[in-house]
Amino acid sequence: MNHVIVTDIARADSNAIAELGELGVATVHEAMGRCGLVGPSVRPVQHGARLAGSAVTVQCWPGDNLMIHAAVEQCEPGDVLVVTTVSPSLDGSFGELFATALQRRGVRGIITSGGVRDVAELREMGFHAWAGAQNAQGTVKATGGSVNVPIVVGGAQIDAGDVIVADDDGVVCVPRAQLARVLESSRARVAREVVARAAYEQGVLSLDHNGLRPLLAELGVTYVAQQEISRGR
Amino acid sequence: MNHVIVTDIARADSNAIAELGELGVATVHEAMGRCGLVGPSVRPVQHGARLAGSAVTVQCWPGDNLMIHAAVEQCEPGDVLVVTTVSPSLDGSFGELFATALQRRGVRGIITSGGVRDVAELREMGFHAWAGAQNAQGTVKATGGSVNVPIVVGGAQIDAGDVIVADDDGVVCVPRAQLARVLESSRARVAREVVARAAYEQGVLSLDHNGLRPLLAELGVTYVAQQEISRGR
Amino acid sequence: MNHVIVTDIARADSNAIAELGELGVATVHEAMGRCGLVGPSVRPVQHGARLAGSAVTVQCWPGDNLMIHAAVEQCEPGDVLVVTTVSPSLDGSFGELFATALQRRGVRGIITSGGVRDVAELREMGFHAWAGAQNAQGTVKATGGSVNVPIVVGGAQIDAGDVIVADDDGVVCVPRAQLARVLESSRARVAREVVARAAYEQGVLSLDHNGLRPLLAELGVTYVAQQEISRGR
Amino acid sequence: MNHVIVTDIARADSNAIAELGELGVATVHEAMGRCGLVGPSVRPVQHGARLAGSAVTVQCWPGDNLMIHAAVEQCEPGDVLVVTTVSPSLDGSFGELFATALQRRGVRGIITSGGVRDVAELREMGFHAWAGAQNAQGTVKATGGSVNVPIVVGGAQIDAGDVIVADDDGVVCVPRAQLARVLESSRARVAREVVARAAYEQGVLSLDHNGLRPLLAELGVTYVAQQEISRGR
Amino acid sequence: MNHVIVTDIARADSNAIAELGELGVATVHEAMGRCGLVGPSVRPVQHGARLAGSAVTVQCWPGDNLMIHAAVEQCEPGDVLVVTTVSPSLDGSFGELFATALQRRGVRGIITSGGVRDVAELREMGFHAWAGAQNAQGTVKATGGSVNVPIVVGGAQIDAGDVIVADDDGVVCVPRAQLARVLESSRARVAREVVARAAYEQGVLSLDHNGLRPLLAELGVTYVAQQEISRGR
Amino acid sequence: MNHVIVTDIARADSNAIAELGELGVATVHEAMGRCGLVGPSVRPVQHGARLAGSAVTVQCWPGDNLMIHAAVEQCEPGDVLVVTTVSPSLDGSFGELFATALQRRGVRGIITSGGVRDVAELREMGFHAWAGAQNAQGTVKATGGSVNVPIVVGGAQIDAGDVIVADDDGVVCVPRAQLARVLESSRARVAREVVARAAYEQGVLSLDHNGLRPLLAELGVTYVAQQEISRGR
Repeated sequence: MNHVIVTDIARADSNAIAELGELGVATVHEAMGRCGLVGPSVRPVQHGARLAGSAVTVQCWPGDNLMIHAAVEQCEPGDVLVVTTVSPSLDGSFGELFATALQRRGVRGIITSGGVRDVAELREMGFHAWAGAQNAQGTVKATGGSVNVPIVVGGAQIDAGDVIVADDDGVVCVPRAQLARVLESSRARVAREVVARAAYEQGVLSLDHNGLRPLLAELGVTYVAQQEISRGR
Repeated sequence: MNHVIVTDIARADSNAIAELGELGVATVHEAMGRCGLVGPSVRPVQHGARLAGSAVTVQCWPGDNLMIHAAVEQCEPGDVLVVTTVSPSLDGSFGELFATALQRRGVRGIITSGGVRDVAELREMGFHAWAGAQNAQGTVKATGGSVNVPIVVGGAQIDAGDVIVADDDGVVCVPRAQLARVLESSRARVAREVVARAAYEQGVLSLDHNGLRPLLAELGVTYVAQQEISRGR
Repeated sequence: MNHVIVTDIARADSNAIAELGELGVATVHEAMGRCGLVGPSVRPVQHGARLAGSAVTVQCWPGDNLMIHAAVEQCEPGDVLVVTTVSPSLDGSFGELFATALQRRGVRGIITSGGVRDVAELREMGFHAWAGAQNAQGTVKATGGSVNVPIVVGGAQIDAGDVIVADDDGVVCVPRAQLARVLESSRARVAREVVARAAYEQGVLSLDHNGLRPLLAELGVTYVAQQEISRGR
Repeated sequence: MNHVIVTDIARADSNAIAELGELGVATVHEAMGRCGLVGPSVRPVQHGARLAGSAVTVQCWPGDNLMIHAAVEQCEPGDVLVVTTVSPSLDGSFGELFATALQRRGVRGIITSGGVRDVAELREMGFHAWAGAQNAQGTVKATGGSVNVPIVVGGAQIDAGDVIVADDDGVVCVPRAQLARVLESSRARVAREVVARAAYEQGVLSLDHNGLRPLLAELGVTYVAQQEISRGR
Repeated sequence: MNHVIVTDIARADSNAIAELGELGVATVHEAMGRCGLVGPSVRPVQHGARLAGSAVTVQCWPGDNLMIHAAVEQCEPGDVLVVTTVSPSLDGSFGELFATALQRRGVRGIITSGGVRDVAELREMGFHAWAGAQNAQGTVKATGGSVNVPIVVGGAQIDAGDVIVADDDGVVCVPRAQLARVLESSRARVAREVVARAAYEQGVLSLDHNGLRPLLAELGVTYVAQQEISRGR
Repeated sequence: MNHVIVTDIARADSNAIAELGELGVATVHEAMGRCGLVGPSVRPVQHGARLAGSAVTVQCWPGDNLMIHAAVEQCEPGDVLVVTTVSPSLDGSFGELFATALQRRGVRGIITSGGVRDVAELREMGFHAWAGAQNAQGTVKATGGSVNVPIVVGGAQIDAGDVIVADDDGVVCVPRAQLARVLESSRARVAREVVARAAYEQGVLSLDHNGLRPLLAELGVTYVAQQEISRGR
């Protein structure tokens, strides 16, 4: 309940983070048992970017970016800034100057439930962003908040040092303690997908590949040729 | 009221479909008397794509893509998969593996009120999508539904074998029985637009080209120079 | 309360407008004291465009674009069409034919709370648009409205002859009477940003650059190392 | 594609309609196999009302209520007016004067995807409404539309003469041809609910009453006492 | 662009305000030519209340109610507080304590684009509210704003001293300078409605009362009996 | 990541819960330092209800209420059921039969991000509900989930055994470990409010009661009489 800036946070192994990043959001999210996804209200600001890194979390007051200023100092190479507000706000609390400072520190991008601005400049710099809005609306620096405390973004809980993966499909958070398990699951999933893709390219149906025909029957789904039905309505 | 997969659906003439696709959504929608448009909540996932094909319709339970698996088998070259859920859901029920299987069968793209994932891969494959969201959220294969029954997507009613046209302006559905009439109307409209465009490029005003000045007068719209008015407020 | 088309509107100095355009929306909005922004519901239809010009305002009935036809005649080189409806509507009241006519007259783009269509064509023509939706839904030409009266778009009030600046961050309106003052403020702001950017590239923290540490202390924000805290929850 | 007013529509048996009304929306919707529901964007304007009647459908232009004027003449005692617009609009196209005229004809209420106004007066008159908004925004009488053609409201397709049931849970449409079957299903469902309610009042668990424990086990759901788990996170 | 509290604002005649209040929002909005309506996002917090008074306008920072504190002092008997934030916020910036202070000063209610809290207490006190949300989320008192400057609420522009009318249909703003004209128009409208209501109670159709049959014909609307049409689809 | 039903959860002291309930959501939320609030998307289904109890949390698949069936067994007198879905869904997964079973067990109400149905019956039974929608849309019983694991509802994190307080202002969650501290803070706050209310009833201004005049001056807020300003715009 007090405002606090947590320093010296633990981070996950950088090789593991890099591997997660190559797998992408959809695979990682599946491997986690479909948990940890930030909902579709937080969207990529650019096309085709993919990012993975350690979360530095920021909790701001709506219309106020003071705590982002404080958070920069807590960032290290390989980090991702993750920002939310205590009540919903799409103000543009993040822009090119912050990106300049963070890129200098080796930070990979920003995830925010709020807005970003200087979008053309961010794209040019290659500083990737996932945001609730593109919005020039500026903010003040007047109210306290916290850095590196657990926050909720788009329905997902994110703690400092958790691993963030983001691409065109959205953003997923992997709790640090689950990293090894999720990696293992992801690899297994990828292996299964390779097999499935090869089968589908040969024309095998997923209905057969996954053995779903009996389930359809059990659920009472029946086949009828179009010419046999007279649509009552 | 029962779950059913309708097979052997009738499709429209492929030359007519191709011609509709070249006309584009805005023209076709006008030619239909401004009916059949899927509303702007279903958006293109890529820029600049244009598609026309025969609808294979799918009605899924929210959070469940079992019936998409069943629908693949009903698809033929030139088809477009059209998916909705019985209650609103933006879950990512469609991704790269489905696209692989469908592309193999000659399917041209997907229209869904729900979500798609593996967006970067879909773009790379050139498999075009119009969707309610880009969303990594996965789905289960547990609940029954129907294929090739009439469905409602974004306020438009779509039946199996109807012709779907989609581009950056959205998605429109042309009932199969109306295809000839819509083609004819569309051609007439295009011809009128060619004339109008040429006039506008010469500097003719649409007010004059369309004879709208009498209507303005009849509606009581008056002209006043800015310097003549003292704005009361 | 009556429908009126205001002619011969006063416009701002074209050099000043051009300079504003180079500054961009975020800077101008800040320089105005964070007023005048059209909210994030009006979005760029293309990536990377930047525009500045004099507003020709249009107030339409929902589902009706008659008054856009009337407004074209009031446009001069360097203008921007700004369209809204008296009650919310995302219908596609603007498309390629209008863009053809306006481009012929030297108009730079369109801002609308409603929808635009022929999006692929607009992009190809380089006619820039900021809109509430991409929507093929057509409109009629049946109901009166006004041109060059004060309108409200996305929460911002816009009068004829006001200066519109638009880019990937959104749209801002600078009242004509404030142009000189806003330009001056903008230049001062840009100068400060040059200094800040240089400092941040050297690794200076914005916390120090802006002297924010005493404020954090005053607001009761404290620093704690992660290992020192036992999270009660 | 032409504007048409369909007259002399067939209606369902009034006793069957009355019985459906007593069953309520949730029961009828279940009995239909969970089809036909108008989504939650159309809400009751009053508390505790329940209505059933034959649909007279109206398709209007946004911001225009001309066709409601035309529809009144088509209404008979026991009817329900069902209104939508060809593109989304929440304008207040219906108010006290219409309600006066309809109540005189024995009409039971209105369902509209748009807005209603004179809400206090409607409540006082006991003329029930389900609407997308309470909105004083008035409309014009300028554009054509249709009466008693099939329309889509909130994702449900509604045809003239279909049976509408509405209460605090929303609005459901029963196609006229399915009325007998739905009534029968509804009665069976009510009978099952009586048994279930009695069991639950005795403390029987629905888990046991419905035999769901084996399903939980099959889905891999396990029981753990709170004190036995150390939450890794 | 500076923060200012405007004092000693002019107000309209209290008898005229009272008469407007009796007419209600829908009538006044029509009499104004369908301008000045606050959109349906600002809703009544109670059922059946009707209010009219002079606007004291407040422009706050999101998440901050400092300027409401400052505005109380500017309120006189018969006023209505009208609050907005410079960027969208639904935080509960207004509650029982403010209502207590305002009721003591004879203020009639509050209109806010943001949130109100202590809703049960407000209802009990009979202090009426129209708000964007019921929301317990509290606010700080840290950032400057303005009182009695022109603001935009729900798409309507409102200036200090304008007359606010609010009921179950929403909120409308009558500019002070237009009060006499709007009153006159409203009375004429009410007179016409009395005639129409009497006619409708006798069973006259609005189609005839308003002479709309020729318009339907002109728009190409045709009548067809249901049994005569074979629906192609 | 596995589906689990946690049994034998710890609960807070019932006297403390009862006292929190009397304080109400706005006060408790303030006393917590403005944390823990479920956002305004979860609304009261009835007017004037107030509830406090221990959370039994339920995580369901969208469109599926199997885990609510499982959760009933975990409920004890004084509990509140708190339900969410793993991705957004407004389906009516809760109705009268569940309420019957829960009321028999002494459960006080339900909080759900999804929908409730049988709303008229729930109101009649006095079983209170806060929900994302009133929606007749039914659900299946096909997919696994969890009971009494930490969930996120409307942006707030809620764990089993946390204390839920709900009234017309919304829903707040007090972590069990913070209950004593929040109670103490709440009482202090109420005491301050009694003093403030008495002052305001005497006509004291909150500007003076809270000593805010120096802050206004410091923020550069100035006072100007209306007649002294010429509005440039």
